[in-house]
Amino acid sequence: MVRERLWELVEKGLVTPTGMISHGRGEAFDYLMGEKSQNSSLRAEKAAAAYLLNAKNPIVCVNGNAAALDPKNLILLAETVSAKIEVNIFHRTERRMELLISYMEENGAESVLGREPDARIPMLTSDRALCTKEGIFDSDVILVPIEDGDRAKALADMGKIVISIDLNPLSRTSRTATVSISDEMTRALENIIAFAEELKGNKKAIEETIRTFSNEANRKNAVEEICSSLMQEFEVENK
Amino acid sequence: MVRERLWELVEKGLVTPTGMISHGRGEAFDYLMGEKSQNSSLRAEKAAAAYLLNAKNPIVCVNGNAAALDPKNLILLAETVSAKIEVNIFHRTERRMELLISYMEENGAESVLGREPDARIPMLTSDRALCTKEGIFDSDVILVPIEDGDRAKALADMGKIVISIDLNPLSRTSRTATVSISDEMTRALENIIAFAEELKGNKKAIEETIRTFSNEANRKNAVEEICSSLMQEFEVENK
Repeated sequence: MVRERLWELVEKGLVTPTGMISHGRGEAFDYLMGEKSQNSSLRAEKAAAAYLLNAKNPIVCVNGNAAALDPKNLILLAETVSAKIEVNIFHRTERRMELLISYMEENGAESVLGREPDARIPMLTSDRALCTKEGIFDSDVILVPIEDGDRAKALADMGKIVISIDLNPLSRTSRTATVSISDEMTRALENIIAFAEELKGNKKAIEETIRTFSNEANRKNAVEEICSSLMQEFEVENK
Repeated sequence: MVRERLWELVEKGLVTPTGMISHGRGEAFDYLMGEKSQNSSLRAEKAAAAYLLNAKNPIVCVNGNAAALDPKNLILLAETVSAKIEVNIFHRTERRMELLISYMEENGAESVLGREPDARIPMLTSDRALCTKEGIFDSDVILVPIEDGDRAKALADMGKIVISIDLNPLSRTSRTATVSISDEMTRALENIIAFAEELKGNKKAIEETIRTFSNEANRKNAVEEICSSLMQEFEVENK
């Protein structure tokens, strides 16, 4: 069970206590979406696959909650689109960084960045700005699952293509991202991997996918899908 | 800060780790409601006040999350409508019961029921069925803040007037309750207290409030209010 695993990783120090609350917020939105990938999610996931395949230096960013939820699919996605993995956390301590990087390595990741930061994300104060030049700093396309709004904005302000996975389509992260995926993380990763397998090597299809995707329209659709799912109970009753 | 207090009480053993996740789910719905009491919430809160004032043996039920969030207003409401307080928890241990009852007493509650259960809520298995005859078992009107769906249903099946406080208007608890309040707990309690002060002693107004309240229509309104709050961002942009 996801909840038990999260709690186990809070006790071990990989996930913060407030990470449990964030997870609960996500659960509520997932519930509103009927716990399945909506059409808007699938469109964003396909666009994400296209951007990642089109990138020069794509990065999959991993924080405590993301690592706890699904290390295997984070690693599989990075392999599929030839992206690097960097651990980057909001509540940074050396111990938590080491725990998380080791956890990703135990789960099969080969070289995880983040142990020795040598760059800073501009406009962010405190240690959460720390990153590696080779990884986050020099990336052109960055996937941020369950990211905080300030950092998503700072990355977008650096001119990067930011792909967020955040169940709330109205969060600051979702509003800031280039591609806002509102979907549960494991479903999102599996869908991006499948779309990447489909698009890989087909430059025309990749460019077409990027060209025809409108994040703003898609995000509005995501909210409409939530509303129609919310009202479903009452519509059925009226029949 | 609520989050820090919750975590402190998880560490002390009053709140369960999954209580943190439940709180996060609530936060998401609160966010969808714009973090204020909607009209539908106010109508349900007024109906709740009327039912509580009209009761023969009203009970305010308290679990770990409720105690952690706002012990003072739980106690003040119980005093205002002459209700008893009973601690009743899902993950029951003698230690947690004692911790929670003591916590309510430290916050000023005079006689808190639950230490010596002598009755069971029918149709519930395991220790979460335990309650007192004087309190929950013999109550006619019961306020359950942040209640689990099974127990809300079991209480309704006993023929009680169940008043729930649950931010999700579509949860099983909200679907089962006689009066479903979708509002943040502190706001809900303060509103019920204010309505009770207003209605107290006015039997006609109390009966009129109960007679004219339709929970099903109100719950639908709550969902409509969430949708209109969700779509607000996009409507503003179109102007």
